[in-house]
Order: sequence, then C-alpha cells, then structure tokens
Amino acid sequence: MSKLEFNVVFFEVVSIIISILAFGAAFWLYKWVASQPSSNKRIAEVGKLIRNGANTFLAKEYKTLSRFCVVAAIVIFIFLPSPIWNGHPLGNILMAVSYLFGTVFSGIAGKVGISIATIANIKSAEASTKGIKPSFMSGFRGGAVMGMAVVGSSLLGVTLVLLLTDNTTALLGFSFGASSMALFAKAGGGIFTKTADISADLVGKVELGIPEDDPRNPAVIADNVGDNVGDVAGMGADLFDSNVASMAAALVMAAAIDKVKGGTINVSMVFCYAAIGLLASIIGVLTAKMDEKGSPTKALNSNTYVTMIIFGVLTALATVVFRFEWRIWFASAIGLFVGFIIGIASDYFTDDTKKPVHEVAKASGSGPAFTILSGVSYGLMSTLPSMIGIGISALAAYKICAPLGEGYAMFGISMAAVGMLSIVGMIISNDAYGPIVDNARGLVEMGNLGDKALEITDSLDSAGNTVKAVTKGFSIGAAGLTVIALLGAFISEVNGAAAEIGKELITGFDILNPTVFFGLLFGAAIPPVFSAMLMLGVDRNAQRMVDEIHRQFREIPGLKEGKKGVVPEYEKCIAIATSGALKELVPAGLMTIFATLIVGFIGGVQAIGGFISGNIVSGLIFALFMSNAGGLWDNTKKYVEAGNNGGKNSETHRAAVVGDTVGDPFKDTAGPSINTQITVVSLVASLTATIFLTFNLFG
Amino acid sequence: MSKLEFNVVFFEVVSIIISILAFGAAFWLYKWVASQPSSNKRIAEVGKLIRNGANTFLAKEYKTLSRFCVVAAIVIFIFLPSPIWNGHPLGNILMAVSYLFGTVFSGIAGKVGISIATIANIKSAEASTKGIKPSFMSGFRGGAVMGMAVVGSSLLGVTLVLLLTDNTTALLGFSFGASSMALFAKAGGGIFTKTADISADLVGKVELGIPEDDPRNPAVIADNVGDNVGDVAGMGADLFDSNVASMAAALVMAAAIDKVKGGTINVSMVFCYAAIGLLASIIGVLTAKMDEKGSPTKALNSNTYVTMIIFGVLTALATVVFRFEWRIWFASAIGLFVGFIIGIASDYFTDDTKKPVHEVAKASGSGPAFTILSGVSYGLMSTLPSMIGIGISALAAYKICAPLGEGYAMFGISMAAVGMLSIVGMIISNDAYGPIVDNARGLVEMGNLGDKALEITDSLDSAGNTVKAVTKGFSIGAAGLTVIALLGAFISEVNGAAAEIGKELITGFDILNPTVFFGLLFGAAIPPVFSAMLMLGVDRNAQRMVDEIHRQFREIPGLKEGKKGVVPEYEKCIAIATSGALKELVPAGLMTIFATLIVGFIGGVQAIGGFISGNIVSGLIFALFMSNAGGLWDNTKKYVEAGNNGGKNSETHRAAVVGDTVGDPFKDTAGPSINTQITVVSLVASLTATIFLTFNLFG
Repeated sequence: MSKLEFNVVFFEVVSIIISILAFGAAFWLYKWVASQPSSNKRIAEVGKLIRNGANTFLAKEYKTLSRFCVVAAIVIFIFLPSPIWNGHPLGNILMAVSYLFGTVFSGIAGKVGISIATIANIKSAEASTKGIKPSFMSGFRGGAVMGMAVVGSSLLGVTLVLLLTDNTTALLGFSFGASSMALFAKAGGGIFTKTADISADLVGKVELGIPEDDPRNPAVIADNVGDNVGDVAGMGADLFDSNVASMAAALVMAAAIDKVKGGTINVSMVFCYAAIGLLASIIGVLTAKMDEKGSPTKALNSNTYVTMIIFGVLTALATVVFRFEWRIWFASAIGLFVGFIIGIASDYFTDDTKKPVHEVAKASGSGPAFTILSGVSYGLMSTLPSMIGIGISALAAYKICAPLGEGYAMFGISMAAVGMLSIVGMIISNDAYGPIVDNARGLVEMGNLGDKALEITDSLDSAGNTVKAVTKGFSIGAAGLTVIALLGAFISEVNGAAAEIGKELITGFDILNPTVFFGLLFGAAIPPVFSAMLMLGVDRNAQRMVDEIHRQFREIPGLKEGKKGVVPEYEKCIAIATSGALKELVPAGLMTIFATLIVGFIGGVQAIGGFISGNIVSGLIFALFMSNAGGLWDNTKKYVEAGNNGGKNSETHRAAVVGDTVGDPFKDTAGPSINTQITVVSLVASLTATIFLTFNLFG
Repeated sequence: MSKLEFNVVFFEVVSIIISILAFGAAFWLYKWVASQPSSNKRIAEVGKLIRNGANTFLAKEYKTLSRFCVVAAIVIFIFLPSPIWNGHPLGNILMAVSYLFGTVFSGIAGKVGISIATIANIKSAEASTKGIKPSFMSGFRGGAVMGMAVVGSSLLGVTLVLLLTDNTTALLGFSFGASSMALFAKAGGGIFTKTADISADLVGKVELGIPEDDPRNPAVIADNVGDNVGDVAGMGADLFDSNVASMAAALVMAAAIDKVKGGTINVSMVFCYAAIGLLASIIGVLTAKMDEKGSPTKALNSNTYVTMIIFGVLTALATVVFRFEWRIWFASAIGLFVGFIIGIASDYFTDDTKKPVHEVAKASGSGPAFTILSGVSYGLMSTLPSMIGIGISALAAYKICAPLGEGYAMFGISMAAVGMLSIVGMIISNDAYGPIVDNARGLVEMGNLGDKALEITDSLDSAGNTVKAVTKGFSIGAAGLTVIALLGAFISEVNGAAAEIGKELITGFDILNPTVFFGLLFGAAIPPVFSAMLMLGVDRNAQRMVDEIHRQFREIPGLKEGKKGVVPEYEKCIAIATSGALKELVPAGLMTIFATLIVGFIGGVQAIGGFISGNIVSGLIFALFMSNAGGLWDNTKKYVEAGNNGGKNSETHRAAVVGDTVGDPFKDTAGPSINTQITVVSLVASLTATIFLTFNLFG
C-alpha cells in the first residue's frame, strides 16, 4: 500500500470514527431527553396518539415505497451502469445494492427522527411549566438527535460505499437511493402535514372560531402527527439526500482528478472536510445552551455561527497539516459565506420586524386578494439575492480553482456545496426543533397546562419559524450548488462511457444547440408542474378531510359544545391523511423520473444537459419563491395576531389567515420538495447517461 | 442594379403597397364604424368621459416617455453601435434616428387604437339594442382598425428603415425603440387598468354589493378608461413590438446569410412572407361576419383559421413562384401550427366547459385559499404543453433548415416566429375587440339600455375572454421563438464586432462555463422580480384609489343612495390611476435595462448569452403561468355567476371573486408585460454587445 493510498483510507477511517461519535452524541442526547420528567396523564395520552399516528403513517409509507424501491432496484440491476447483457454483471449488482443501501439508510434516519421527536414533544411540553430554558433544551436536544443521526449516517454510508466498492458510480447509486426516498418522503409527508393543518384550521379556526390545537377538533391529532412525518421525517430524508448528493458529487470529481494525477489527495480532502463539518456540528450541538432570560432565536442562531467558525478554522488547520490546496479551502469557505448571505436575505423577506411582513399586513386590510398579491410579489422578489448569490459563489469557486488544472474548476463548485452543507448537522437540529416545539405547544393546550406554559411554547415555536428561514436558505443554496456540481459529475459519467465505446467526448452544452435549448425549456417546466401536482394533492386531500370533520361535528353529539368525556374520532382523520398522501405522492415523483427518461430518449445527452440546467434554474426560483412567500404569510398572520393592524378576529386577520393557508403547502409541501426533485433529475440523468449516449431519436 | 437586387427592392415595394392597403382597410373600417348610428345622450356623455380620460392618460404617458426616449436616444447616439469617439458618427446618427422612429411609430399605433376604440364602444353599445350582429360588427371592426394600423405600420416601418439605411443594426435600433415604448406602455397601461378595475370591484361589488359598471361608483369611468389604455393601447404597443422584433431578427439573419452567399433571396423571402401575412389578415378581417344566430366565439375563431389557411396557401405559392426554399416554408408552417397548439392548450386551462375551471369552482366552496391554491396549481401546469411546444418547434425548425447551410438553422427558427406571428393582424383585431365590447357593456349598463342589450353585450364580452386565451398563446409562443432567434442575432452582432477588432469569434454559450451559468441564474430571476414590481405597483395604487372611493361615498351626500342628479367625481379616480401608473412603471422598466448592462459589465458577452437564455426560459414560464391562471380565475368567477356551484352571492362566489382579483394583475399587468421584458433584454444585449466584448470585469 503506497503512502498516498494510506492517506485516503486514513481519512475514511477518521470519517467512520466521527460518524460513530455522532451516533454516540445522538444516543447521549436521546437518553437525556428521555430522562426528563413527565407525569401529566392527559399529555401522555395525547402524546401516545401522536406517536402511534406517526408510526402508522411511516409504516404504511415505507411499505408503499419499499415496493417502488424493489422495482427500481431490479430496473437498475438490469440496465445500470450498463445493460446487463453487456457482460459486467458485478457492476450492476454493486449499483443495485448501493441503491437499496441508500434507501435503507434514508429510511432509518427518518425513523430515528420520528422516535425522538414524539418523545421530545412531551418532554418539552411538560418542561414549559418550569420555565423557558428546560423547555427549550428538550426541544433543541430532541432535534439534535435527528441532526446527529442524519449526518452521521450520511457520512458513514458514503464512506462505507466507497471503501467497499471503490466505485464512484456506485456512490451515485447510493445517492440516488437516498434521493428517491427523499422525493417520496418529502412529498408524502408534505401532503400529509398540510392536509391536516389546513383542514384543522379551516374548520376549527375559521368556521367555528375555536382555538388552534383545541382537543374538540377531530383533525388536531392528525395535525400534530403531520408536523412529525412532514417536518421531521420528510425534512430529514431531504437533508440526508442533499448531504449525500453533495459529498457524492465532490467525490466523483475528486476521484476523476486523482485518477489522472495519481494519488488520492482530493478524495482525502473531501472526506476530511466532511468529517470536520460533522465534528463542528457535534461540538455546536453539545455546547448549545440558553439562559433563562435569553431569546431562543438568538440561542439557535449563535449555535449555527459557532459551528461555522469551528468549521472554518479546523479546515484551515487541516489544509496546513495535510497540504491540501488553499484555493479549494477558499471555495468551500465562499460556499459557507454565501449560504449565510442567502439565509439573511430569506430572513429579511419573512421576519416580522421587516418591511415585507408589515406591507403584507397592511395590504391585508383591503381583503385576502391583496394579502395574496403582495405576498406573491415579495416572494418573487426574494428570489433575486439568492439567485445572484448562488451564481456568484459558483462563478467564484470555479475561477478560484480553475488554475489548479483540469477538472478542478467543477470540483471547486462541488466543494463550495460541501462547505455550505458543512453545518448541515446544525441545520437539521434547528429544523427538527421547530415541529417538536410546535407539537409541544399543542400538547400544552390539550393538557391544559396554563397560560404561562402556553406563552413559553408560543415563543419557542415562533423562534423555530424564524430560524427556519435561515436554514432553508442554506439548504436551497446548497442544493443549487450541488446540482451544478452534479452536472459536472454527469459529464464525467458520460465521457467515461463515451471513451469506452469510442464516441466523441462531450465538452459542454451549447445553449445555441436547439437540442440543448429544447431540454432547457422542458426541464424548466418540470418544477412548476411537480409543485402543482403536490398542491393539488393537498387540495383534494384537504377537501376529503374537511368533509370528515364536518361529519364528526354533525354526528357526534356534544362534540361541538365540548361536553366532558366526548372525544372525536381522531384516527379517522389520520387515516384520511395517510391514504390520501400515499395516493397523491406517487404520480408527481414518477412524472419527474419519466420526464427525464423521455427527454434523454428524444434528444440524447445534449438534451439532458439542457434539461438538468433548465430544471435547476426554474427549480431554484420556485423553491425560493414558495418557501419565502409561505414563510412571509405565516409570519404576517402571527404579526397580526400579536395585535397589529387590527389584531385577532379583525377583517385583516381573516385575510391574513387566507394567506397563511395558501402559504402552508407552498412552504411545507411544494417548495422544499423541489430541492429533492432537482437532485433526483440530476442523478437519474447521470445514471442513465450511458444508455442515452447510444439510444436516442434526434441527439 | 443586378437582377437579385431588383428582387429585394421589389419585395420591399410590395410590402409598402400592402402596408398602404392595410391603412386603406383601416380607414374604410374606421369610417364604417363612425357612420353607425348613435343617438343616446347619456351614452354619448359617458363615452366622452371615457374618451377624454383615455386621451389625458395617453398624453401624460407619452410626455413622460418622450423624456425617457430622448435621453435614451442621446445615450444611443453616443455609444451605439460603437462609441462615437471611434469615428463613425453616421452609424450612431442612423441608430439614434431609427430608435426614435421606432418609438414614434409605436406611439402612433397606440393613439390610433385609442381613437377608434373610444368610438367603437359607443357604437357597439347602441347597436346592441338592435341585435347581436350589428353590435358584434361594431366591436370587431373597431378592433380590426387597430389590427390593420399596427401591422401595417410595423411592416411599413421595418421596410422603410431597411430601404433607407440598408443597415440591419439600425433595424435592431428601430426594434428597440418599439420595445422600449411597449415596455412602458404595457406596464403603465396594465397598472392603470388593474388599479381601476380592482378598486371599482372591491368597493362596488364586494363592499356595497352594487352591480358592475354602476354609475354611482366613482371608479367606474376609470375602469372603462383602463380597458382602453391597458388592453387596447398597451396591447397594441406590445404586439407592434413582437411583430417588429420577429421581422428584425429574421432580417438580420437573412442578411447575414445573403452577405456570405451573395444575392438577396433570403431577405426577399422575409418581406414576402410578412407581406403575405398582412394580406391574409386584411382578407380575414374584411370578410369576417356573423349570423344573427351565430356564436361570437365561433365567428372570431373562424376568422383566425381562415387567415391561417390563406397564409399557408399563399406562402406555398410564393415559394413555388419565387423559388424560395421549401424547408423554410416548413419552418414557418410549423411555427403557425405550434402557435395553434399552444392556443388550444391555453384554452383548455381557461375554458369554462373544461375541467380546470370546474375544479377551481369546486375548490372555491372551501374558501378563497382553495381558489388560489387550485388556480395557482392549474396555472403552473398549463406551462408544460406550451414550453414543450415552443421547444419542439424551435428544434424542428432548426433541424429542417440546418441542411441548407451555415446560418440557416437559426434563420429557420426566426421564420417559425414570423409564421406564428403571420396572423398577428387577426390577433390584434380579436384582442382589441375584447375591451371594446367590455366598454360597450359598461355603457349599456350606464345608459339603461335594458336587459336584452345587457345580455347581448355580456355574451360578446364573454367571447372576447375566451378567444383571448388562444391569441395570448400565440403571442407568448411567438415572443419565445423571436427571442430565441434574437439570440442568433445577438451572436451575429457580436461576431461582426469581434471580427473587426480581431477578437476570437463566439461559437456558442456553454452552460458549463460558470460565467454563462451565472448569467443564466441572474437572467431567470428578472421576470419574477419585474412582475413583482408591477403587481406591487397595482397594489399600492389600488389602495390609494380605494381610499378615494371611500372618501367620495362618505363625503358626497346622496351618492350611495343613488339620488338623482348626484354624480361622483370620476376624474379624481382617473387622475389617481394616471399619476400612480406613471410613477410605478418607470422603476420596473429601468431595472430590466440596468440588470442587462450590469451583467454585461460583470461577465461580458458569455454572461449576457446566459442572461438572455435564463430570461427567456423563466420569462416564458411566468408569462404562461400568470396569463393562464388569471384567465382561469376570471372564467371561474363568470362560471359561478352563471349559477354554478351556488351561483352569485354564495360563499363560493365570494371566494371566486378573490381569485379574479388576484388574477387581474396576473393576466393583464404582469403576465403580458413579461413578453416585452424579454424582448427588451435581448435587444439591449444585442445592441450593447460590442461594448461588452471589450469592457467587462471577468468575461
């Protein structure tokens, strides 16, 4: 074993060790949360309903998806990386197994998230009677379990796949497994959660005027289940996917460079940076605390900044010690910095102390149409800084790394994505914190823990919404950079295959080539259609659930009046949300995959290159637009409810509620699913590139 | 003069003759409309108010724009086509004059449209007491005056510029003049009309429950003025611009081919096809008629089909006689055919007999949030067929024409755009018919002409809405193809300049070049921001006008009760709409132009290439989405008002009205302005290409 080969194995082993450290941290945090006191019977009862509902949904979802995954694995086995009759069956087996491995890892991460979230919600709720600090810690540490589990398993999975197969195409297979799970988990969870949320609000708040989380509302448990399956499990699968994809893209390009230059320094560097990112997150998570008088928003944000600084310093040190290229360090630092800028911009458009929220609240005074018009407008505007930021960071990373030689430029972009996602452990912790404290608020209401506790959980919940904007900015930006990098991986794959069969190598995708342009137009239309399918799914499903809620209020005597001992049939609503979500999630996911295959079949590799690019561009715009507009409407409603512009129950408030209802599927169903959708398109394209190099109509 | 040179002059002379024929037809139609009987005093009075309001707005708008145009002309004179200190002042003078020429021609077309529209509305209103046929004919022939004037003057202008200057860059200057007027006219008119429309509806229909066009409503005249300045003058400027741009792009590329090959056959062909398109429209317009029992929708559509067939047959004949290339004929026929397909698709998503309208109406039963969610979803879905259609027609035109040799492929795409726009005379006639009969309906209501007349004008108005979907599909598709062709023109310009200064020629825009990708991301963000600025403009302006309406109802005694002799202060509302529109239109227009210049300055020609492409792709998506979603909501409201899903004044109706209010600025302000916005970006880029070839930061 040469010295350089020793190096990469060294970093792989370090990655595995740090992954295990992350699992250790997760386990410790889990134990800590589980050991927090809980005694309230009513809360335990409701908590159990939520837990069972979430587990039932997850079981059914995984059952549906496992069928899909098995079929996909068989298709992969037959066709990828090259049709099996070409006589390399081992490659096909590796690919299919890696794919399944990816789906299983993703599934486990989701399952872990649900398990801890449905404990942490109870603990956080009960702790709220003792003060904001213990309540916050239960919520945050619950989220951190998820963060550590997801990032630990993604680093572990990637490392194991490369260590065992030594095959970067298999890595793309693993990543595709993670993506296909994420596509459906995010979409399914997103449909579930918004179905329940909208229906509960529509009948409860709007029609009957009963408070949020009122136990009389038959949809209230489904709503809380939704927070878990959509915002915890779905989000976890999504970020597991982004993280794996960014590492996979970087590794594919690093390996291509190393292959040409000899040695393994670039692959080593990717593992080293990823391991440091995870280490920084572990430190950030474990040292996180909040004073009794501190603000939860500040606590969450300062953890994020601490993690960023640790990452920056440690990677600089590693660059010195292991003699990595400084230019690549700069690329990854730029990624991190631009992610931060994008987060700030998203924050501006959604924060209730800034102009957009105030303007939308003011416009709402003229009725719901103006809530929508002004919200849509600010949402559209919010895309500009992020689009420019992503473009500039890609440009800068490319230009900084290009002088290092062939292949480094695209590698630089992928390392910017790795840099942006280095703090993903922290992002997930903050993101999972949100639904946990949201649930806790519901439990406080249902368990009658008093106004003081309600106030505390309200403020924790609101902090969750605010930091969400920053973390969403990160994850959208990182997805953008990752997919740009995957475009590079796509070319690597194509040219590898082209060289084998003696075809001309691809040097780029010229927009003036009408096949590329055709792909560009087609690809750009996919994110709008995809998000429309999901939103129509929510729409249809919510109509079914509203009918069910009406039925229960009509048919169960004493329910509306809140007669003691009368409980609604919560599980019926959960069943509707579950079956509806499973029914609606499949077509949108399949449409995405088939559209990619059709374009490849029509126009070959050039059309696919255009398709991916159009998909990225329009996907980023719609993801940013929908996430930010949704967050803006949500916070506008909260701002009005806090007594501004007429306050609760005014005409303005009613208009703001309409905005919030529109914004819910925007920000929690369609918007974040687009991230996954563009990753899936890139991976499907990369994996099938070889086939469409030879089989196509007009390419 | 060689034989071939004679040919192009021959076709230029033919084009001038047919343009004059079009003016003759317009004059005859104008006289016909003016000679129709009118006697009702009340209608004459209100008609005069509308006419004066429209003229006042137009005068103020032109005054504002003339300042802008003079400044722009001076800048052009100094810098374009190359800085004046380079020592070719004649070229700069030609360019600046062509630019001004373009703005003046566009302005005249708008003025003609307003003149006839504000006569035809009265005639159509009064004729409605005699039956649907005479009322329809007044409306249609009024619109046709506009159609003939716009297309005649665009063909005349283009021909004169090329005949007098023999300089295709000057042609781009002319086209830019038309575009910059269109940008502001469409945006300004769009803001005016929707400000008035929304405010009138909001206070009148929603708050007070008085009927549409009720004369007590202070905004009612402003609303009718808005139909004229937005939908007639603005739309005219828009289609004047598209038509000029498509011809200019085709001529630039035809001239480039002819220059290399010798002869003028390709330039001749463009003039020949454009002239035949105009001739076909003249025949279509003059032979249009409707039976007393016929449907106005059918009448409008069958005229369109007749025109298409005439164009197809005559161009085939011309191809035989003048030995043009058949492949190019096919390209233009494909353009026409795909335009038709796009129209059908738009029709599906907006027609009240199809599923989307029914589904949105059904969803509205759960409240306005669902009206919005389902409408947004179907609007997003509607983009897919058109995007694929545009992509495929460009691909097909390219592939069909590529075998003819260097340069023919892009020329083929531009001829597909010319084919798609060949029936533009008909499109404008149908489009201008809409606001005329909409106005007529208002006059019938205000003049108390009775229920029968109201029913007739209602059905004419509804037909206008339906055919609008088809014609809008055409104009968006044509804009898409034109701008793709302009990308070709851009390259021609750049390479012409590059050859002169000894720089490397540009062969394409590689998406993998991060400078191109940066441009792509930046360019894609412009249409959303542009439309957001316009919508916020409407929003702000409508809030001002609503305040004014409230004031009048509060302060003018007897107004609300409809006391005889009490009239509202209509002119105050008109003044608010006017000043607001002028204030709001400038920033959005300037943002577009400056963004293009900034990108060019940062990344040079490659960044601009990406910028144009990103702008086209996202511009098409947003134009299609907003136009179709807006049309869908409008027709859903009408569908509910016709007695479906609960009918008028039901909860469903109130929700549908919210959808319609959101849809109004979508479809009449933002959506159609994006067309112009993408043309302006392409032209600014083409014109400044030379400068950014040498002056830029990172290119």
